Amino acid sequence: MTETSLTELIRGIRPLDPAVLEAAQRRLDDLTKPPGSLGRLEDVARRLAGIQGTAKPAVRKKRVYTFAGDHGVTEEGVSAYPREVTAQMVLNFLRGGAAINVLTRYVGAEITVVDIGVDHDFQGIAGLVHAKVGRGTRSLARGPAMTREEALQALGVGIDLAREAKRDGVDLVGIGEMGIGNTTPAAALLAAFAGLAPEEVVGRGTGVDDEGLHRKADAVRRGLEVNRPDPSDPLGVLHRLGGYEIAGMAGVCLGGAAAGLPVVVDGFISTAAALVATKLAPAAADYLFFSHLSQERAHVRMIEHLGQQPLLVLDLRLGEGTGAALAMGIVEASARILSEMATFSEAGVSNREE
Amino acid sequence: MTETSLTELIRGIRPLDPAVLEAAQRRLDDLTKPPGSLGRLEDVARRLAGIQGTAKPAVRKKRVYTFAGDHGVTEEGVSAYPREVTAQMVLNFLRGGAAINVLTRYVGAEITVVDIGVDHDFQGIAGLVHAKVGRGTRSLARGPAMTREEALQALGVGIDLAREAKRDGVDLVGIGEMGIGNTTPAAALLAAFAGLAPEEVVGRGTGVDDEGLHRKADAVRRGLEVNRPDPSDPLGVLHRLGGYEIAGMAGVCLGGAAAGLPVVVDGFISTAAALVATKLAPAAADYLFFSHLSQERAHVRMIEHLGQQPLLVLDLRLGEGTGAALAMGIVEASARILSEMATFSEAGVSNREE
Repeated sequence: MTETSLTELIRGIRPLDPAVLEAAQRRLDDLTKPPGSLGRLEDVARRLAGIQGTAKPAVRKKRVYTFAGDHGVTEEGVSAYPREVTAQMVLNFLRGGAAINVLTRYVGAEITVVDIGVDHDFQGIAGLVHAKVGRGTRSLARGPAMTREEALQALGVGIDLAREAKRDGVDLVGIGEMGIGNTTPAAALLAAFAGLAPEEVVGRGTGVDDEGLHRKADAVRRGLEVNRPDPSDPLGVLHRLGGYEIAGMAGVCLGGAAAGLPVVVDGFISTAAALVATKLAPAAADYLFFSHLSQERAHVRMIEHLGQQPLLVLDLRLGEGTGAALAMGIVEASARILSEMATFSEAGVSNREE
Repeated sequence: MTETSLTELIRGIRPLDPAVLEAAQRRLDDLTKPPGSLGRLEDVARRLAGIQGTAKPAVRKKRVYTFAGDHGVTEEGVSAYPREVTAQMVLNFLRGGAAINVLTRYVGAEITVVDIGVDHDFQGIAGLVHAKVGRGTRSLARGPAMTREEALQALGVGIDLAREAKRDGVDLVGIGEMGIGNTTPAAALLAAFAGLAPEEVVGRGTGVDDEGLHRKADAVRRGLEVNRPDPSDPLGVLHRLGGYEIAGMAGVCLGGAAAGLPVVVDGFISTAAALVATKLAPAAADYLFFSHLSQERAHVRMIEHLGQQPLLVLDLRLGEGTGAALAMGIVEASARILSEMATFSEAGVSNREE
């Protein structure tokens, strides 16, 4: 993908049609319930209607893309788990034993696992999307994690997968990730875009101790110093501080928005991808649903910076797309409210006394 | 049901087995994820394990009981909707057009609608549990809403339904309600048990204006004055201030706990039933899951008084069991995490560096 084709894609993202949003609101208010009594479900349903261009939206086919990548920054001692766990967990995903497998099965979603940058040779392994951009990024604490071209390539992987989902008749896409060390690049992206200090953006990830937390803040601090990211150049920020899987997920957000496909964003690292996507294309925000508030402490700052509100607060901090899978159930339920409930006149129920 | 048989039932409620809870925790920590990273899902899974007596709990069959009843307190002008809406909505439930029908279908739960006190003759109508205790309660603002015998009868209806669910192989029960005016008795119960002022416990329900809100507070104030409820006699509080559907739901909580069946509690009115149940039988709390924080403003006080934390915050305020249905999905997903995920050794994944 070139910068020119990315710019064209972004230009093609359309805001939701106010007429459809109004039609959906009228229908919501005519359903047999007090107006607004289904709270957030009504907001979700209305926005889905806007995205699908109909007051009776439908979610029939759901798919989660779980992107896996490794990170040079693990050299700086920022994770509680060894780097090889990324590849081991990819194999666990393919065998169906991970949390994301259990939760996608439960909500009736497909899962597609994407090797976009794992430091392991998966050649010949079936059931995996082979889209490796590199065998792990370089350490963001010592220079750019990716080249600008690598970041564009990884964005392109996500954009292509969103297009593929649209072609396959998927109505709702979820994004999630696996990558030992990736709360650090996510934190660095937040610091760069929101102008926060390293200490404000780092958290315990999969469970580092106080020293690990200190090393994370130090890695972010050095990363900001050496890379001097410029928030007015989001692609520059992404390639200097991000990761392959973060860029891939940002690509799904952009490609989904361009294709008119709603995207459910998982936790801290996925939200960092959504942050990159909306810095590149503010209009993409209409197509994104934020699934849950992660226990990773800076997630709340990231969500606030985006001006969003997550659907679930379940103290998750696993990633993989687990929160997205659960929230896809809430999104599908919201669509069904709008499509399947009876209206006051259909049901012969008296409306409120005005 | 007599007071003696109620006391016996309550005496039969057993605390969860610590050995099973520990076995479930060990298994949770051995699954391929950082310890605790599934947050609230892990708490739910552990408690389900304790209730079912196995570290691999299963939720195969789910059922929501939606209890409908009318309230004499509607005479005091406490609702935005006319009283006949209770009966009309019961018919809407039976035809499958209400929100609870859509959401139970979505999560794969059965729904059983119970006429426990609607002011309408449903004779001969199929698909409805006919268990009418009376055609609406009397106004709690003018005297006891029910007799002590009526409250026991309504509790017995719920207890019997919980036993029936157990016999039918149901693994997870939800409770919800329909009853125009019933945020007022729920508020009165909260005031009586938690020692709160009428102004602190009332809210807008289905949407009353400021004057309606004032009439609700006034009805609660008069109800407390005329009934002088004694919190040390929970059955006395229930019959003076409650409603048939609230007593029925409290019965499901008690009967579920006695039968070893987890019960998912819906919103403000259902939580009032859980409040009554746990005042009668504190040990029942182990068997209850609180589904969501209602937009009804005093719900947070009620949940705090119970020392509980709801699973979802979606600004719902509809009742019917809608929040319970959504949360049953989260509970089922939690069970599957414990039962279906691979362990570190099974998956060949390296555990954290200690």
